[in-house]
Amino acid sequence: MSLIVQKYGGTSMGSPERIREVARRVQRFVKEGHRIVVVPSAMAGETNRLLGLAKELNPEADPRELDVIASTGEQVSIGLLSIALHRMGLKARSYTGFQVPIRTDDAYSKARILAIEEQNIRRDLAAGNVVVVAGFQGIDAGGNITTLGRGGSDTTGVALAAALKADECQIYTDVDGVYTTDPRIVPEARRLDTVTFEEMLELASLGSKVLQIRSVEFAGKYKVKLRVLSSFTDVNSTDMGTLITFEEDENMEQAIISGIAFNRDEAKITVLGVPDRPGIAFAILGPVADANIDVDMIIQNASTEGMTDFSFTVHRNEYRRAMQILEKVKAEIKARGVVGDDRIAKVSLVGIGMRTHAGIASRMFGTLAREGINIQMISTSEIKTSVVVDEKYMELAVRVLHKEFQLDKAPDEEKMRP
Amino acid sequence: MSLIVQKYGGTSMGSPERIREVARRVQRFVKEGHRIVVVPSAMAGETNRLLGLAKELNPEADPRELDVIASTGEQVSIGLLSIALHRMGLKARSYTGFQVPIRTDDAYSKARILAIEEQNIRRDLAAGNVVVVAGFQGIDAGGNITTLGRGGSDTTGVALAAALKADECQIYTDVDGVYTTDPRIVPEARRLDTVTFEEMLELASLGSKVLQIRSVEFAGKYKVKLRVLSSFTDVNSTDMGTLITFEEDENMEQAIISGIAFNRDEAKITVLGVPDRPGIAFAILGPVADANIDVDMIIQNASTEGMTDFSFTVHRNEYRRAMQILEKVKAEIKARGVVGDDRIAKVSLVGIGMRTHAGIASRMFGTLAREGINIQMISTSEIKTSVVVDEKYMELAVRVLHKEFQLDKAPDEEKMRP
Repeated sequence: MSLIVQKYGGTSMGSPERIREVARRVQRFVKEGHRIVVVPSAMAGETNRLLGLAKELNPEADPRELDVIASTGEQVSIGLLSIALHRMGLKARSYTGFQVPIRTDDAYSKARILAIEEQNIRRDLAAGNVVVVAGFQGIDAGGNITTLGRGGSDTTGVALAAALKADECQIYTDVDGVYTTDPRIVPEARRLDTVTFEEMLELASLGSKVLQIRSVEFAGKYKVKLRVLSSFTDVNSTDMGTLITFEEDENMEQAIISGIAFNRDEAKITVLGVPDRPGIAFAILGPVADANIDVDMIIQNASTEGMTDFSFTVHRNEYRRAMQILEKVKAEIKARGVVGDDRIAKVSLVGIGMRTHAGIASRMFGTLAREGINIQMISTSEIKTSVVVDEKYMELAVRVLHKEFQLDKAPDEEKMRP
Repeated sequence: MSLIVQKYGGTSMGSPERIREVARRVQRFVKEGHRIVVVPSAMAGETNRLLGLAKELNPEADPRELDVIASTGEQVSIGLLSIALHRMGLKARSYTGFQVPIRTDDAYSKARILAIEEQNIRRDLAAGNVVVVAGFQGIDAGGNITTLGRGGSDTTGVALAAALKADECQIYTDVDGVYTTDPRIVPEARRLDTVTFEEMLELASLGSKVLQIRSVEFAGKYKVKLRVLSSFTDVNSTDMGTLITFEEDENMEQAIISGIAFNRDEAKITVLGVPDRPGIAFAILGPVADANIDVDMIIQNASTEGMTDFSFTVHRNEYRRAMQILEKVKAEIKARGVVGDDRIAKVSLVGIGMRTHAGIASRMFGTLAREGINIQMISTSEIKTSVVVDEKYMELAVRVLHKEFQLDKAPDEEKMRP
């Protein structure tokens, strides 16, 4: 008998019929002898509907009140799912964030979970209940309702699994796992049976958005076994989606590369002819950070004749603002110029195997060169190699890399490659 | 400077535009120097939508979970109204039932308020906030969400006014006050400036449904000054609706009759030829009460030759069930027979002045007789005289009585009547 936390997304809860499906799936696991805690999201569209009403009344609405409003979506879901479970003869009991309680800080709309008092849930589970906990919400020290931000129900699920020391946290969504890359761009993209936490983190942050990043970090920190599955498979399906592991030697696939991530949300900015002296990076990025603009890649090359170029990427929405700031900075640091481009894309090879396999990067660059794709920036870490290219080449780059690294083939086949 | 509790109904909160209107009205009172606590209902239609979803999933849904679901409607309203108030430059802060807290018993879907801890509200009012409290909801001793039943937001408003010792509780609705009778039946029906608590109670319970009865009882018990107004008048209108008073000499209108109430929700049952001996009323009504059927009018006439007829009315929906019970009772008490009729209507003259004015009842009966309307049952109390007539005569009876007692004329004119 295992204790399993199951989180269901908004599409999975999208209609009474879908909610009944969720209830059937829970019922199956209960019949198999498991104890179940369910974390449903708001019904698809509901949170947007509510925030739309709020925005109509006040475009700059108070975050405290927005959380009071937005948290009702999940509250409706826990009630509906509980009565659907009752209808199937199961004992079930719902909990809002304040009833658990799930204690958070007071950062409305993006609160962080500080503690979960799990005694009530344990008591209900021991009494044979399915426990249904509202995702996305908590309560701060002042008794105010808080929400964890978009996708926060994933975090609630993982945090509950950690607090309850659950055997597994299952994230049900409308995709059936983590793929080597986006199947819409590469039809041969293959579903991974397992992926390491670090690879998942890169894949999630770089565009293959299956899980909310914070929930994956949380799972890593507390060593919660995390599994991504589809709620659209048959209720009795034995398909177990993708397991996210935290130990490399545990049932690891032996692939060098696990997948290819990409995004076109970024813009690059280069400060040209910067005097190469201490404090120059801070002089450039300090004002950007002060303006609350997040920076992703940062590249500074070795200098020639005491001068260097300094490049970084920001979110495309922040591009204009960042350029305005840099124009001022340029004068202060006596740089030669500032140039930028917001028509770029970032493509990343992700794989834990990269740590020990030389030549991955050069093979990547060679593949792109053969297709005539110019590489504008390069950044590497232990488990990924990212390049910035003209956005018009993004799909092509993803496809040729997916083929070159034979990601459409299972790892066993990969190993036989010369 | 007064402390005013304002309750707004679902129609008043029915759209962002309507919510803005509510905010404007609150703003006007704040500008006039009052401290305001607002109790909004759920947006019109929202509670039904939510309960419809629940019913689709489980026609016999658990009341605890229904309350979790239904209470979200008011939670959305407090958030939306607060941000609309902020938009107008007012300080405002929302409270759900658990945040106040409003403590209730655990009778889900029809909970009763046990206590209101008003310290947080007082602190916020003192700090210059408009305090926005969710109607219809509370929390029981176990931390479960409860609701007060349909129309419960009226009760929340009055209970808050009592706890805060507010100067007035204003109930904003889609009618502009209490009328002498339903204007849809008698176009000359006149709005009353004041009505006593007891008259209001009769008028509300007998069909002129402006306020929830429980809230009026609550107001009476705690001597809360209650005012019914329309939220559809101009925001700056000085129209003050109808004030419900608890002291007869306080600005009282001198009318003998304040209004005419009516309903056709009832059915009458008569047990014929009952032996007139002790315990007979209990023998008849005991089994009815045991079946949880509420009885309204009860009439037993003086007996002739040791036998009497015993009549009472029940809700029309309970008529068949009550008749079945009476058939059994008939044999036990050896009554001659049981007859019933569910095509009746009850028409009541209501007026505090009746206490001291003789002849009202006979004038009522004479008026009906002149129209050929047969009176089937009569029941009187200190402030009302009710008759049961064939339902087809209901509108006619209301009209002729309204005219006879000159209810279309203001009390001053009435006084000059011979």
